[in-house]
Amino acid sequence: MYIIDGLQYSNWTRELFTEARDAGVNAIHVTIAYWEDSEETLANIGHWNKRFREFADLIMPISAGTDIKTAKELGRVGIILGFQNCSPLEDDLHMVETLHTLGARIMQLSYNNQSLLATGCYEHKDSGVTRFGREVIREMNRVGMVIDMSHSAEESTLEAIELSERPIAITHANPSFFHPAKRNKSDTVLHELAQSGGMLGLSLYPHHLAGGANCTLDEFSRMVCDTVEHMGIDHVGLGSDLCQNWDYSVLEWMRSGTWTMTPDFGEGDAQNRDWPEQPSWFRSNRDFPTIAVGLKAAGMTETEIEKIMGLNWLRFFEASFSSQNGRTQTMQEVSPTSNDNVPNAIGAGR
Amino acid sequence: MYIIDGLQYSNWTRELFTEARDAGVNAIHVTIAYWEDSEETLANIGHWNKRFREFADLIMPISAGTDIKTAKELGRVGIILGFQNCSPLEDDLHMVETLHTLGARIMQLSYNNQSLLATGCYEHKDSGVTRFGREVIREMNRVGMVIDMSHSAEESTLEAIELSERPIAITHANPSFFHPAKRNKSDTVLHELAQSGGMLGLSLYPHHLAGGANCTLDEFSRMVCDTVEHMGIDHVGLGSDLCQNWDYSVLEWMRSGTWTMTPDFGEGDAQNRDWPEQPSWFRSNRDFPTIAVGLKAAGMTETEIEKIMGLNWLRFFEASFSSQNGRTQTMQEVSPTSNDNVPNAIGAGR
Repeated sequence: MYIIDGLQYSNWTRELFTEARDAGVNAIHVTIAYWEDSEETLANIGHWNKRFREFADLIMPISAGTDIKTAKELGRVGIILGFQNCSPLEDDLHMVETLHTLGARIMQLSYNNQSLLATGCYEHKDSGVTRFGREVIREMNRVGMVIDMSHSAEESTLEAIELSERPIAITHANPSFFHPAKRNKSDTVLHELAQSGGMLGLSLYPHHLAGGANCTLDEFSRMVCDTVEHMGIDHVGLGSDLCQNWDYSVLEWMRSGTWTMTPDFGEGDAQNRDWPEQPSWFRSNRDFPTIAVGLKAAGMTETEIEKIMGLNWLRFFEASFSSQNGRTQTMQEVSPTSNDNVPNAIGAGR
Repeated sequence: MYIIDGLQYSNWTRELFTEARDAGVNAIHVTIAYWEDSEETLANIGHWNKRFREFADLIMPISAGTDIKTAKELGRVGIILGFQNCSPLEDDLHMVETLHTLGARIMQLSYNNQSLLATGCYEHKDSGVTRFGREVIREMNRVGMVIDMSHSAEESTLEAIELSERPIAITHANPSFFHPAKRNKSDTVLHELAQSGGMLGLSLYPHHLAGGANCTLDEFSRMVCDTVEHMGIDHVGLGSDLCQNWDYSVLEWMRSGTWTMTPDFGEGDAQNRDWPEQPSWFRSNRDFPTIAVGLKAAGMTETEIEKIMGLNWLRFFEASFSSQNGRTQTMQEVSPTSNDNVPNAIGAGR
């Protein structure tokens, strides 16, 4: 069975990578930018290249979607680099191709707030996809970078689905019918996303769950089944939004960046500002197999479970990471001489 | 008579500064950023400090509004540094104070496109002032930096007027009733701007004029009178939008920055993309006195003409450049020992 996670943001260590590998996780979309500008993003890419060398026995970068199959064969965790904001572009359209060449495969058009491309889910009003945003969508379509609207507002999301010539993703969010958080998605969004061939990664972040940390595996699993009812079995996966090994200062920065003098509490509040406790049945990458057990208990067939756990993301990423006019080099083509000599992300893109 | 211009963007030379001084221009708000990020803006400030030394016989930086009086006494052109976009802040609220300290006194919240703060006048939809925008308005109010909505969309402009505790400016635009360009302003905006104590700088850029370069001095002067009818005599000045000594590549960059693959033609079009020809009666700073002649012919009194030509901007800038809790040092206080030793803009702010 493939296990592919639509989003994580952790302070990675050998121990965390080992947990993921030992649990059979084949690929994780990892966030490498929230507010970082171009230069800071380059530094983060450099830091990941260092990790690809240091932990080459545990992880490998994903360039083409099919690299996930290689990662599975090699018993490593494939790492998909992505941004939760468009800040790495600054105001430069040409940075889309540059960052794709450097390994980035997924980018949100906005993160909570208004961006230069689209409106975030916490803004007062939603003006949809901007002039610059339309250009960026075209360019992301061309080079093979997935448009992610997880933290975007409703109209912006619907417009992105319509404007994009390729299916888009909401890598980490739940349906509003399950839990009406601002970050969760309306029936309309779910419908349009599925109709256009897109993917929803269901989240295990407590603020996205009905009942928070008290949400049971059974409740979560039944929500997965309900979402499949709405969207069809081919458009649903997991996007755990697992955040590990960070202190509160990182959460404060994620929420408030440098855009406000007074802290923003995001999905929490002043009395409840810290990282939320995870449900007892999902605390780390070790717990992915538990979800498969839950889905089975909720009545899903093996074929359905395999799609949810990873096959849907695999199919989607295989189709999405290639350029519109060709295809993306696999990691084996980039470095065909040795399986052990995993190349770094730089230059792996096209 | 004071002559103060609400906006110019030129490739300045000794000759151009001399023309302005010889015509009796006492202060000009000069644009030093359209798309520049923080680092590029610092370089532009540095370049202006070089000019303040090199052309110290002709120009001087304006820190407090009252410095304009000093400039007049010294027979120099006061230079007010400003941005036509919020790009110099990047996503950092703290940059407002930093850039004010370095000499910036006016900033547009958006330039044509959606920004992180507000919507531009060429966007499809207008979502008003963003979460970050509200923070920035508060901070600009606090330090004494004028909010300029010349290139912003209608709702964003009305919200900025409402949110700002201090009067704002539209430094360079005309009323839509005169010429219905996207860059010109509705009766509603004119009314709210005047009611809140704000200022409108009337533009001499041909795309803002009825008839373009064929607009006559008489037509322009009557438009000034009509605008005064709408807004009152104390809320109208000039904001020529004079752009001198640039080739087309600069105009292309102003319009398209790095946000689009295909050139945007702004107020022009593909057949008419270049810098527009100026009206025969306003081609350079030499022609400011001509406008006073036109206003007299249109029936304005001397007192009214003096307000339009400069006194309104003088009063507005004197009130606007001080911090909310104190006042801004004048250039004489910054460097009290010598009138000739004009200090550079760095450190002149607070």
